[in-house]
Amino acid sequence: MGRYFGLFLCCSVAIAQTAPSPSGKWVSHLKFFDNDNYDRMQLDLSGDTKLSGTIGDDVFEGTFQNGRIEGMVESRSMKLTGVLKGDRIEGSGANIHNEKLKLKWDAYREQPKYSGPAQTHSFEPTQFEHFFSDATPPVLHLNAGDTVKTWSVDAGGTDAKGVRRTSGGNPLTGPFYIDGALPGDTLVIHFDHLRLNRDTAISSPLIVSSALNPGYVEQRKRIDDYNADWKLDRENGFASLLKPTDTMKAYKVPLSPMLGCVGVAPPGGQRYRSGYLGTFGGNMDYNQVREGVTIYLPVSVPGGLLFVGDGHALQGAGELTGNALETSMDIEFTVNYMVGNAPPNPRMENSDYLMASGIAGSVDEAFRGATTNLVRWLETRYKLNAAEVSSVVSTAVVYDVAEVVDPQVHVVAKIPKSVLLGLKPAP
Amino acid sequence: MGRYFGLFLCCSVAIAQTAPSPSGKWVSHLKFFDNDNYDRMQLDLSGDTKLSGTIGDDVFEGTFQNGRIEGMVESRSMKLTGVLKGDRIEGSGANIHNEKLKLKWDAYREQPKYSGPAQTHSFEPTQFEHFFSDATPPVLHLNAGDTVKTWSVDAGGTDAKGVRRTSGGNPLTGPFYIDGALPGDTLVIHFDHLRLNRDTAISSPLIVSSALNPGYVEQRKRIDDYNADWKLDRENGFASLLKPTDTMKAYKVPLSPMLGCVGVAPPGGQRYRSGYLGTFGGNMDYNQVREGVTIYLPVSVPGGLLFVGDGHALQGAGELTGNALETSMDIEFTVNYMVGNAPPNPRMENSDYLMASGIAGSVDEAFRGATTNLVRWLETRYKLNAAEVSSVVSTAVVYDVAEVVDPQVHVVAKIPKSVLLGLKPAP
Amino acid sequence: MGRYFGLFLCCSVAIAQTAPSPSGKWVSHLKFFDNDNYDRMQLDLSGDTKLSGTIGDDVFEGTFQNGRIEGMVESRSMKLTGVLKGDRIEGSGANIHNEKLKLKWDAYREQPKYSGPAQTHSFEPTQFEHFFSDATPPVLHLNAGDTVKTWSVDAGGTDAKGVRRTSGGNPLTGPFYIDGALPGDTLVIHFDHLRLNRDTAISSPLIVSSALNPGYVEQRKRIDDYNADWKLDRENGFASLLKPTDTMKAYKVPLSPMLGCVGVAPPGGQRYRSGYLGTFGGNMDYNQVREGVTIYLPVSVPGGLLFVGDGHALQGAGELTGNALETSMDIEFTVNYMVGNAPPNPRMENSDYLMASGIAGSVDEAFRGATTNLVRWLETRYKLNAAEVSSVVSTAVVYDVAEVVDPQVHVVAKIPKSVLLGLKPAP
Amino acid sequence: MGRYFGLFLCCSVAIAQTAPSPSGKWVSHLKFFDNDNYDRMQLDLSGDTKLSGTIGDDVFEGTFQNGRIEGMVESRSMKLTGVLKGDRIEGSGANIHNEKLKLKWDAYREQPKYSGPAQTHSFEPTQFEHFFSDATPPVLHLNAGDTVKTWSVDAGGTDAKGVRRTSGGNPLTGPFYIDGALPGDTLVIHFDHLRLNRDTAISSPLIVSSALNPGYVEQRKRIDDYNADWKLDRENGFASLLKPTDTMKAYKVPLSPMLGCVGVAPPGGQRYRSGYLGTFGGNMDYNQVREGVTIYLPVSVPGGLLFVGDGHALQGAGELTGNALETSMDIEFTVNYMVGNAPPNPRMENSDYLMASGIAGSVDEAFRGATTNLVRWLETRYKLNAAEVSSVVSTAVVYDVAEVVDPQVHVVAKIPKSVLLGLKPAP
Repeated sequence: MGRYFGLFLCCSVAIAQTAPSPSGKWVSHLKFFDNDNYDRMQLDLSGDTKLSGTIGDDVFEGTFQNGRIEGMVESRSMKLTGVLKGDRIEGSGANIHNEKLKLKWDAYREQPKYSGPAQTHSFEPTQFEHFFSDATPPVLHLNAGDTVKTWSVDAGGTDAKGVRRTSGGNPLTGPFYIDGALPGDTLVIHFDHLRLNRDTAISSPLIVSSALNPGYVEQRKRIDDYNADWKLDRENGFASLLKPTDTMKAYKVPLSPMLGCVGVAPPGGQRYRSGYLGTFGGNMDYNQVREGVTIYLPVSVPGGLLFVGDGHALQGAGELTGNALETSMDIEFTVNYMVGNAPPNPRMENSDYLMASGIAGSVDEAFRGATTNLVRWLETRYKLNAAEVSSVVSTAVVYDVAEVVDPQVHVVAKIPKSVLLGLKPAP
Repeated sequence: MGRYFGLFLCCSVAIAQTAPSPSGKWVSHLKFFDNDNYDRMQLDLSGDTKLSGTIGDDVFEGTFQNGRIEGMVESRSMKLTGVLKGDRIEGSGANIHNEKLKLKWDAYREQPKYSGPAQTHSFEPTQFEHFFSDATPPVLHLNAGDTVKTWSVDAGGTDAKGVRRTSGGNPLTGPFYIDGALPGDTLVIHFDHLRLNRDTAISSPLIVSSALNPGYVEQRKRIDDYNADWKLDRENGFASLLKPTDTMKAYKVPLSPMLGCVGVAPPGGQRYRSGYLGTFGGNMDYNQVREGVTIYLPVSVPGGLLFVGDGHALQGAGELTGNALETSMDIEFTVNYMVGNAPPNPRMENSDYLMASGIAGSVDEAFRGATTNLVRWLETRYKLNAAEVSSVVSTAVVYDVAEVVDPQVHVVAKIPKSVLLGLKPAP
Repeated sequence: MGRYFGLFLCCSVAIAQTAPSPSGKWVSHLKFFDNDNYDRMQLDLSGDTKLSGTIGDDVFEGTFQNGRIEGMVESRSMKLTGVLKGDRIEGSGANIHNEKLKLKWDAYREQPKYSGPAQTHSFEPTQFEHFFSDATPPVLHLNAGDTVKTWSVDAGGTDAKGVRRTSGGNPLTGPFYIDGALPGDTLVIHFDHLRLNRDTAISSPLIVSSALNPGYVEQRKRIDDYNADWKLDRENGFASLLKPTDTMKAYKVPLSPMLGCVGVAPPGGQRYRSGYLGTFGGNMDYNQVREGVTIYLPVSVPGGLLFVGDGHALQGAGELTGNALETSMDIEFTVNYMVGNAPPNPRMENSDYLMASGIAGSVDEAFRGATTNLVRWLETRYKLNAAEVSSVVSTAVVYDVAEVVDPQVHVVAKIPKSVLLGLKPAP
Repeated sequence: MGRYFGLFLCCSVAIAQTAPSPSGKWVSHLKFFDNDNYDRMQLDLSGDTKLSGTIGDDVFEGTFQNGRIEGMVESRSMKLTGVLKGDRIEGSGANIHNEKLKLKWDAYREQPKYSGPAQTHSFEPTQFEHFFSDATPPVLHLNAGDTVKTWSVDAGGTDAKGVRRTSGGNPLTGPFYIDGALPGDTLVIHFDHLRLNRDTAISSPLIVSSALNPGYVEQRKRIDDYNADWKLDRENGFASLLKPTDTMKAYKVPLSPMLGCVGVAPPGGQRYRSGYLGTFGGNMDYNQVREGVTIYLPVSVPGGLLFVGDGHALQGAGELTGNALETSMDIEFTVNYMVGNAPPNPRMENSDYLMASGIAGSVDEAFRGATTNLVRWLETRYKLNAAEVSSVVSTAVVYDVAEVVDPQVHVVAKIPKSVLLGLKPAP
């Protein structure tokens, strides 16, 4: 990234030689007690002192005199004052109805979105994270378009060579900081390769009781000495039990490598264990997060902070035993971001489907969330009204139950791209 | 069915010439107040008077003297007395602990399961039923193996020619009485053909509010003049809106004809409207009930009483607008039954999947019901213990949300037959 | 009821001596295939032949000539023709857009609501019903204001003297036909007395597994020989186990007699077993259905057809073991009806609370149903807008979980009458 | 706390004069990667070198030679080695099956539970927390038995004088560190006083859409200019709208001050915003958390770390508008702890009831959680088997819906203490 910053410094010096102006693109940062708000800000100096522009979607009107910015954001009942210091603004704000409600304000020049040649980074993890959190320092800064080749330990902390590297509970690789991504943006992660790197997986022996009728649970006979380890035949593409009972000797099931965990730092300073999932993605445990999928996640902190982990050699719908076929994984992904349009919940796309997640406290609520997430996506993407989107979704939607064993349930509503060919995307 | 009964009468006459004996296969009918209980009964006369056998799975021990049967079913705390009258027994029962608790008892000779040549019946319906109920007289008696060619009006009561034939609400064709099927048996219905017979379907304009987040519902703009009728292009195999908005002009979706309603008479004398569904099947609204599917339903009354109807030209998962593409349908199905093994909820099978229904008051509960129904099916079919069935189901299960808009929610757990090839069916 | 009909006949004769006129109050009955629709109808003859009025809330415009009525109900796209035959009209209808859609039409003079002296009926049941259904002939006709003294067997069919009178499953006393009540009306039942009439109750030993965490269920140790019969000490007002374990010897709990079942015939010809509940009431199993409560139920068929039964000596919230303390009961109730305003679900009232039922497939949905039922009730009763009713309900609502063990869950939202004193009822 | 530590140092010195021995009570701290495990540990030196004891509930067997501890905890497959350094042990551990799995081990002498005179602390908060987290340094150390007098801002951050003190979202007072409390213990908090300290409260105007039927939500007319601020008449004990509409002028509802937030640091390093709730308590929003209540919370980190806040002048069940009558509060509470027996979810007690919380993702699951929490409590407290506890709970349980508007639903199962009088508490 040397060249990039070099260029920037050079220009910056060049600008400094003329009269300093606040005009241009900024990132504004407003702090109210311990709440941080980031907005893209556009300022335009016209005439000698008139300063106008936008902060996020809101209009700013003010003045610039003697290096001092003063102005108002009516729609936020907020006035701002600041001092231009090169490529930074430092100042404060207050509520126009109650002067005692004060904010801190600072801003820095926004760089144009990176459009240089993409780089491929090989990242060798040495420590592993157990939280989705903005408090974890990034392991790598990436530009839009960059690719990362890395790997993850399995859910128990063991790597491709069978070495225990950390404590269990979905240890994560990352976080990766995507330069330029701001809160409200959409992080776009494409998984170029997800490949198994060892010949065994661990799992659990019994379907969790909460996925079954209580009457069945009550009379189920537990099997004490069942071995739920699996052998991964990577050459022929299937898994079978490592030490099967007689009955299960010939049982085999196709490999379909996927990642259980793909997530960004959650909003509001929350710190969730790596078994959690939510609007930020996380432990989504969806068996379509496979090679070739693209995931859209809402950015909540600058840089997004992307974590990946929890490889599964394969996983049935629901992840019914609480563990899929847990294994280490070689991972290659490419990152990008779109300005704004942060989805309410994760969205995904592969060659066949658009997929919208519902993540909630019950299957019922996750189902409604998934339907709504898909409906909103299609409404926006194809400018459909409520009846049109109903005609599309009601004739073609398919639901997947991703998982029902984590702290939140995950249901996906997906629609075949083939039926969308007759619709025109909004410009 | 003339030949069948002719044979029976002939044998009956032959038996009558020797001393009458109660030995043989019977159907026992016990009535306690207004509760009817049917059991297959086997009686064996040994020596002069000793009579032993089974009623259902319970042992009967007694005597036969002077045409009079007396005996005991210990495991039911029940004694029985009856008189043999040719091919009938008439008598009564009482609780051995409380003589005042009396039952009525009668029995008739069970015919061997029909194994003659199957017949194909063309049935032209003239009236249509609005209830799943054992109170409706059957329109046709069928033997195991028989095929019926018939048709159904659409959910609103209109036939292939656009003639309104009855009131709306899923009018049903049937019921069909399957000779020999008894309560506790499994009715097996194979759909040989499901074919569209007209070029239009009706539907509804908006996704039901209960399938969406309430926050979305609250701000959704209703579209007043939207036409949700569909054109069915049977030649090319797709549907499109009959009077589309500009945006929807090129929207088309593949036809996939299915039946919303397949059900038998519910247990216990209940009478459900044809929009209901439950253990008896009914308005299941599952888009895999297509040509080629086989459905297994639990028999609750003699003959089962099969009803079919509610054709859909196609239906997305969940039947989200409350109506699929509702149309009339040409139907051809073949019936059979298996003795006993009535499933707890409907089960289905096609060339690719075993499918087990969960039908309940919420998506959560229907999900658990479907999982349990599939688990029990596989446990029985392949003699799997709780851990083995967990390994199979957790690695390969797929869920379908059939519908969420009827009085009960319907979720299906299905498993690809391909992964079951390594398992041996129980004998 | 002799005097009442005598009076009516006399007037009727008097009218007959003048030219017969269709003017007056009628009950219209429209039949579309097998759907029955009842409406109160007002007809007014003005001039020689002009006939105008209302059917339900819809305007009728037409003519009356030579004993023949012809007219139109625009808002229903329906035309009607009929012949006046004394106190009946006989005729037919058709859709004005599609003449082939025909209806049958007949009407009879509506009697004014009974305002004579109330009667008290002693009703000694001899048979017991196992369905909520309009197919059961009424055991008694009642006028508005009449009181019935009767009794019910316990849920297993046993009476006050310990005699088994019928099969189990909540046998019902009734149905009672309330003269004048029509579909769309509100049946009002006040329970004057609910009194225990024997010293024992039966119950079940274990909390149902669906009311507990599956993890608890999985490890719960079943107790094989536990006796869950109860002794009712009516003199001192408490229950204790009939044959208690040592630990439970001193456990006693206050008696609080209630009825599990209060229901009318369900709509649409459905026939539900007496364990069901729904908009029609039924097996509501709510421990506030005690002496002094008034219940409001929606009338679905003429006369309403009221059933009562399933006495409980007491019941904890939820009816957790699937049975309360089941016993026979002496019952005294008074009936009335209000024209129209049928509630969407049952409502109740006692000296302290207004209570609104939510009956649905899950606790979540029953909770929402109860809240909505209460909100609508208060909105109508006190002319509150959405914010006002929110202020009232959010500050004072209390929820009861009535039961979670029947085919539908029952939750009640209730509000203390004390906080409503500051609000003015709508006129 | 000076005297306390003085005493301890004196004894410590006395011991130091004899040969140092590891015998006695310790707190063991095992660290596996970043997982911390605390156990009470008892060590007993017998003979010259034999060292035996317990770590938690597990047996330790080993030796003590030359200041060096070596031993085994069979039931954890763990061996330990350490060095005694006065009142500390420092060492390490390893898995006996896999030496590469290493732990860090240290221990410190456990102080006897404080039994000196209780102190009352007046704590004047100056900053307010927005997370339940073990990363927040404690504001005060308390001994078992100590009382704290303090206060909280309202949910929006405003204090008794109307001064905004922090950002909104349930700012918390605390955390308070209870000396001696260890993970696995039960924190016991008694609220001696909860008193209003100003005359206004803020709230929200509309019942949240997720608490209502979607059909109602769809047609609800929003009221734009409704003022949902409340006046608190502390003298007469009721609240009324500050600027009521005409209809609501006389509406008043009794004050019943309570705390929405009472919680400890959650387990596993998680950091939840102060709007969350869970096993650790938190934003429980239960209107029985009033003056006189005692709350039992599971301790997850040494000292527990107690936070309080979110005062409500009153709150209806469910907290239906998303806000109760939010106000600042004077708070006085007394802390204690019980060794072990950490409840699975919060429990509460007042003069009338034992109350057990269920906190989960849906009303259904919270209901099951509450029932199970109460059942387990009574089983333990009164040594009841599954049938006995079923008889007690099914006859006397009452449910409260605490709230349905936070990230988890909260339902409470409670039982009147009056019915428990006949049962004997386990010793």
